[in-house]
Amino acid sequence: MDRIPILKMGPLLLVTIQVDMHDQLAATLLDDLSERISRHSARGVLIDISALDMVDSFIGRMISMIAGVASIMDATTVLVGMQPAVAITLVELGLTLPGVRTALDVERGMKLLQDSVDAR
Amino acid sequence: MDRIPILKMGPLLLVTIQVDMHDQLAATLLDDLSERISRHSARGVLIDISALDMVDSFIGRMISMIAGVASIMDATTVLVGMQPAVAITLVELGLTLPGVRTALDVERGMKLLQDSVDAR
Repeated sequence: MDRIPILKMGPLLLVTIQVDMHDQLAATLLDDLSERISRHSARGVLIDISALDMVDSFIGRMISMIAGVASIMDATTVLVGMQPAVAITLVELGLTLPGVRTALDVERGMKLLQDSVDAR
Repeated sequence: MDRIPILKMGPLLLVTIQVDMHDQLAATLLDDLSERISRHSARGVLIDISALDMVDSFIGRMISMIAGVASIMDATTVLVGMQPAVAITLVELGLTLPGVRTALDVERGMKLLQDSVDAR
């Protein structure tokens, strides 16, 4: 697989990360995502990582980069489906993901994004 | 990765297939999906295959099996994001996927499922 699919749902984009990231895949995802935010005037990006049993600093940095790109394009990023072990690892790595909001599952994440869009 | 995530969105379940299927992964997906349909009383299953550049008869049969299981549990299956080359391959393989509805993207698939739920 050479790219991670981005699904459009109303004003939101959904990205489900299931595979190990490598440099090229991450770069393609960032390109695709910024293009889609611009094309659809997306207000929010949901990143589902429920399939990940573990993370490393590369994935952590990539999530921060996605949130940074989305933020300067006026979209909010919500990370959903984080497993407890992943949360522990992120904190141990010192990656507290500033600027990224989190929710337990996709439904709560969508509600959080919807509320933040409505509040503007 | 040892399982494909299933995302719940209202009365629907969303499965994004991004990786090559093998027997164990497919069996786990079927187990998980039937358990989730039952637990959430789901009325529809959306399977997104936009990440797949090609399919083989194994994937084709697995999609048919998912639709079969969903159907006897009173849920409708909609396949979305099929690339043109994938459609051609499926027909060439003789897999016309009876009982599976299709839509071009997730949004149209959700609308199709919503309409079929409302029509009952």
